[in-house]
Amino acid sequence: MLFSLLFNRKSHLKNSPLQLFIRQSFGFKPKNIELYTQAFVHKSVAKKNPRGLKISNERLEFLGDSVLSTIVSEYLFEKFPDQDEGYLTQMRSKIVSRKSLNSLGEKIGLEPFVKYLKGNFPYKSLLGNVFEALFGAIYLDKGYNKAKEVFIKCILEHYVDLENLEANNIDYKSQLLIYCQKNKLSLEFKTIKEETVNGSINFTMGAFINDELKGQSTDLSKRSAKQAAAEIVYQEII
Amino acid sequence: MLFSLLFNRKSHLKNSPLQLFIRQSFGFKPKNIELYTQAFVHKSVAKKNPRGLKISNERLEFLGDSVLSTIVSEYLFEKFPDQDEGYLTQMRSKIVSRKSLNSLGEKIGLEPFVKYLKGNFPYKSLLGNVFEALFGAIYLDKGYNKAKEVFIKCILEHYVDLENLEANNIDYKSQLLIYCQKNKLSLEFKTIKEETVNGSINFTMGAFINDELKGQSTDLSKRSAKQAAAEIVYQEII
Repeated sequence: MLFSLLFNRKSHLKNSPLQLFIRQSFGFKPKNIELYTQAFVHKSVAKKNPRGLKISNERLEFLGDSVLSTIVSEYLFEKFPDQDEGYLTQMRSKIVSRKSLNSLGEKIGLEPFVKYLKGNFPYKSLLGNVFEALFGAIYLDKGYNKAKEVFIKCILEHYVDLENLEANNIDYKSQLLIYCQKNKLSLEFKTIKEETVNGSINFTMGAFINDELKGQSTDLSKRSAKQAAAEIVYQEII
Repeated sequence: MLFSLLFNRKSHLKNSPLQLFIRQSFGFKPKNIELYTQAFVHKSVAKKNPRGLKISNERLEFLGDSVLSTIVSEYLFEKFPDQDEGYLTQMRSKIVSRKSLNSLGEKIGLEPFVKYLKGNFPYKSLLGNVFEALFGAIYLDKGYNKAKEVFIKCILEHYVDLENLEANNIDYKSQLLIYCQKNKLSLEFKTIKEETVNGSINFTMGAFINDELKGQSTDLSKRSAKQAAAEIVYQEII
């Protein structure tokens, strides 16, 4: 009887749709399926544990977010040995942005497994968050190197068009400078505002052409704020 | 002659102050010492490689930043099984903040090894950036698990006072609510502004007591902006 119960339990887990999905999508067999199950629980349907914590995918998402960022950072570091950290940061932002992760989550077919309260409004970033939580689960279940292997082989090299991302990675500051030099205009970037927001400094940088403010942007780094300000002006005048 | 050259070279590397420092501080012998040497090169003294890239520590810093975030995320995830991701995020921010990493870099004595142009002005975050780059180097040289082991054993458990960080992790929103209830005041948080900054949405949230704006803060999440606004008001009135 006990044997039969154990046997049934095991065979039930083996054949669960989620387990099958993971084996088919990522080519491995989960050790601790509970982790994966939890990765698909949106907070809208989460129950509280005896100590008052809502058992949703949010903690796994917190973890997976960092894990994905590290995997992508190393991948780009190796792939682009002659690009500076500004370029790598831009490329990473594109790969792990909300929009990109939502789209990856959709492409690999996460939606049918997600447990959430289906209401009249869509949850923003639902699939992207599940995607992150899933990689938090893989990391805890199989370790960092497996998570890296799976993400690179089954996601990055399959669904992410690096060349296309690179083509969009225009250095607007340099382009704007070239344009201004050609047209004998002066171009200068100045700090308009420095503001402490939640312990970090936000820089607002302005792009000035012939001393006239043409565009401005705010970011945690001056370099990024300048780039974004340059992009605004570039899109407008070129 | 060749033997003697090889021997001298090897013995030189074995005895370099940086190699000794790493062995003494972290208990392991670097495989590729070049990576560690590069981690200490500030951009102010970096030379360009033949393809025009400045060989400073900035690429390693880009990598190390993510690596540290993942290590700390997992550590907190395991350490606080009953805290939600908001709590974990706050704790992680404190451990990997510029201020904290600068202080850790100082405590473990990185300064004598840093190569930078000594001018009249101090470089902001010099040691924190080297600290990140160093963990980028450890990660590339010895792998993720070694970097994790070293950071937890030699840094986190040695220099970071988690209990003190936790004590400072006050939920100002709840505290402010308790205060307002006691004093029969109404407390409300409202969105003052939503602004797209470099592709992300910045929320400015205001804390209103009896419909009067008492404090406001801006952040990428409404939750964090509310907390920060609550902290401002809390510090002022309680």
